[in-house]
Amino acid sequence: MGRVTVRRRVLRYRDGVVDHRPDALAAEEPMEIRVNGRPLTVTMRTPGSDFDLAVGFLVSEGVVHRASDVIAVRYCAGATADGSNTYNVVDVQLAGNVPPPDASLERNFYTTSSCGLCGKASLEAVRTVSAWSVEDDPLRVSPDVVVSLPDRLRAAQKVFDSTGGLHAAGLFSSAGELLTLREDVGRHNAVDKVVGDGVLNGRLPLRDSILMVSGRASFELVQKAVMAGIPMLAAVSAPSSLAVDLAEDNGLTLVGFLRGNSMNVYTGAERLDLA
Amino acid sequence: MGRVTVRRRVLRYRDGVVDHRPDALAAEEPMEIRVNGRPLTVTMRTPGSDFDLAVGFLVSEGVVHRASDVIAVRYCAGATADGSNTYNVVDVQLAGNVPPPDASLERNFYTTSSCGLCGKASLEAVRTVSAWSVEDDPLRVSPDVVVSLPDRLRAAQKVFDSTGGLHAAGLFSSAGELLTLREDVGRHNAVDKVVGDGVLNGRLPLRDSILMVSGRASFELVQKAVMAGIPMLAAVSAPSSLAVDLAEDNGLTLVGFLRGNSMNVYTGAERLDLA
Repeated sequence: MGRVTVRRRVLRYRDGVVDHRPDALAAEEPMEIRVNGRPLTVTMRTPGSDFDLAVGFLVSEGVVHRASDVIAVRYCAGATADGSNTYNVVDVQLAGNVPPPDASLERNFYTTSSCGLCGKASLEAVRTVSAWSVEDDPLRVSPDVVVSLPDRLRAAQKVFDSTGGLHAAGLFSSAGELLTLREDVGRHNAVDKVVGDGVLNGRLPLRDSILMVSGRASFELVQKAVMAGIPMLAAVSAPSSLAVDLAEDNGLTLVGFLRGNSMNVYTGAERLDLA
Repeated sequence: MGRVTVRRRVLRYRDGVVDHRPDALAAEEPMEIRVNGRPLTVTMRTPGSDFDLAVGFLVSEGVVHRASDVIAVRYCAGATADGSNTYNVVDVQLAGNVPPPDASLERNFYTTSSCGLCGKASLEAVRTVSAWSVEDDPLRVSPDVVVSLPDRLRAAQKVFDSTGGLHAAGLFSSAGELLTLREDVGRHNAVDKVVGDGVLNGRLPLRDSILMVSGRASFELVQKAVMAGIPMLAAVSAPSSLAVDLAEDNGLTLVGFLRGNSMNVYTGAERLDLA
């Protein structure tokens, strides 16, 4: 995966002193996701785990629910004038019984409803589209395990060390074992890659597991966890108000400000073995 | 703007001790942007400066270039069953000579070209659509001013202090004076709000100014700066490879890792008065 980082000369200024040195940058390239040969969306992403990203994106959008929904995933060859492949166009072939998304797919979760487009409508849309409930998930986890997750994630994050520019998403067992790690310039892409890996390995819904993300917890990330059947989301930084509402609405455990030996538990505290 | 933060009870765990306390969360709500009455897109955003956000988004997409392109911006009333207003649907009325965006607007910058969708095509798309060039912008700035920007931004950031969950974007003069500050759960929204404020006050292109953002510098943020005619972008964290390519391609000065008394200058170093 030589395309995950790009080397480049940079001018460094420090306390009035200037020098020039090579620097590693996180790679960013556009990727078009096609379904049954039809273009669906373009996302800017860090190359790598592209098939995971394409399939995970379709899980987040409520199109794919299990491995058997996908017949094949492949790079589209010959898209260039000279017949070479940029590896930036991925086609997902769905099983015959799986309805392909329509062109207005991005609106699935943002329906203008009788409430005139509000947070409540967004919550209801996720409940309607989701194939799983995480409410009854048996996950129970020790707070000692939870506070250990950021260090475990960073220890496993290879690219971050060299560029400082990548978000990470890690899937952990209740014992704190890292099951899957993915990195990307986009936090949502990193999560889609983790979920896509789960689908392609026949492990959806991802019950009894914890999704840990660098950065903040938005509505979108909670949505992705719910759609993948993950019962707990932990973030290094703050959640938004709508992220907390969606977590509560779906019985997901939401942890924020997970740093050092402390955390905030916004919803679903019953899954933590607190004294 | 009582809707910028939401208070909520949270369980705090610290070194094995549990307590419950109220916590302030950054508000997140969907907002639909309409153009001439037709729905264009929905973004999850922090309420506040909604008209700036709508107009700034249209600048980033190459639809709006100056104040006279916009006749009116308003909340759509009566979208709810009971006739009340959620203030989450904003309509932008364009001047008669301004072509409205088509439904496939999101593809403007991500055209599948003869190169088969690659970074180069994305760069060319921005160059084609942009109304301004920042290449000849007269901005010159002292490194002392640049390293002072993060503190100036944080000092002005009111909501961040209470929630820890908002991104900030600030527009500064070459002397380091803060001209505009906007905050949002989405970094791209914060930038669109700054740009929209510039349009609605008749100040585009935003020449001789510096855009400072919390977090990282992606392709998308450099694109937004170029589209608004801003000659310099400074970020607290790392840029991506394509962000650097786009900055170089357009003669924009790109600074990253702006912390303490140091920074990395990736492109356009001639605008900094270095010894």
